Amino acid sequence: MHHGRIEVRTSGKVETVEVTDQISEEIRRSKVREGLCTVSVLHTTAGVFVNENADPDVQRDLLGALERMVPSDARYAHAEGNSPGHIKAVLTGSSVTLAVRAGALELGRWQGVYLAEFDGPRIRSASITCIGEVEG
Amino acid sequence: MHHGRIEVRTSGKVETVEVTDQISEEIRRSKVREGLCTVSVLHTTAGVFVNENADPDVQRDLLGALERMVPSDARYAHAEGNSPGHIKAVLTGSSVTLAVRAGALELGRWQGVYLAEFDGPRIRSASITCIGEVEG
Amino acid sequence: MHHGRIEVRTSGKVETVEVTDQISEEIRRSKVREGLCTVSVLHTTAGVFVNENADPDVQRDLLGALERMVPSDARYAHAEGNSPGHIKAVLTGSSVTLAVRAGALELGRWQGVYLAEFDGPRIRSASITCIGEVEG
Repeated sequence: MHHGRIEVRTSGKVETVEVTDQISEEIRRSKVREGLCTVSVLHTTAGVFVNENADPDVQRDLLGALERMVPSDARYAHAEGNSPGHIKAVLTGSSVTLAVRAGALELGRWQGVYLAEFDGPRIRSASITCIGEVEG
Repeated sequence: MHHGRIEVRTSGKVETVEVTDQISEEIRRSKVREGLCTVSVLHTTAGVFVNENADPDVQRDLLGALERMVPSDARYAHAEGNSPGHIKAVLTGSSVTLAVRAGALELGRWQGVYLAEFDGPRIRSASITCIGEVEG
Repeated sequence: MHHGRIEVRTSGKVETVEVTDQISEEIRRSKVREGLCTVSVLHTTAGVFVNENADPDVQRDLLGALERMVPSDARYAHAEGNSPGHIKAVLTGSSVTLAVRAGALELGRWQGVYLAEFDGPRIRSASITCIGEVEG
């Protein structure tokens, strides 16, 4: 059992930031060899998801599609003006749980873990929990 | 290890109901101090997600955006007529896993856990599983 | 603690394949009686989600709605041409965590676990992790 925290400083209104290395570092610290790792963002206009980390155009297309699905210029009731950010956060999800195998995050060949900023720029925090068999 | 169940009686066709307190009560019962808590809704036209619980307009905007993305009046094959409910449930997700720290659900300042009703009113159940280190 | 792997051979460009039985078989092998089971797809144009497995029209309507939300013929930057697959994978999610109770996956009456193929046909793998109390 290990609890950690990662921080990301985002630089745009809407962007994705790969956090795979930061999570891997927390898993190393946890000494968990076989188990689960949960990553939860602690904000309501940011998300966490897993997808391709090879071609940055994939992230660009994802953000473009979310903007078409949840247009900034639609009518929203929430007075702060960041409703699209809240809605995109629900669509991408705020937490992922992944396997830890042989002391490392188990991901497919092209997968990376991303924090999605939908109302930046800000400093964002995510909670990391590693649970399972610890090296002995 | 603790398994619990929460119930929610919804009152509208489509609405969100905050269940943070009910989950917190299950965590207290579990006596888990440090670990994970998984919440899974046991239905196919309801979802579970984490988002802002301060301004109710955020929930209203979320439901409005989902209705625009999955219109009730589009053409669907499923004869029961509740396909939009199934689709919205997939978009929001049916389960969330969050950290338990110092015996409490770890959430950000503005976060709450919500059950989303997409084909109500009904009585909805969610399964709660708490795993980790128990107070000694 | 048990790590397993399931494989699915998809036959269409876009389809969903129920994997509930394959996951249940992994849980049996794990001998976990009470705990959690995480299923993570190891690809970036495939998803995992829980929804109705009674009427196949529900799956058809879901895929139709995703196509309307993320049209194949919109303009995308990613040169491989499968951006809609990546985006749909983020919308459905790449991982689910569910309760294991009395040695079986805890699901509602109408729920099944699905692998969603968004750029097939291909052979797809998902990682299964079961954690908790083992039968003694």
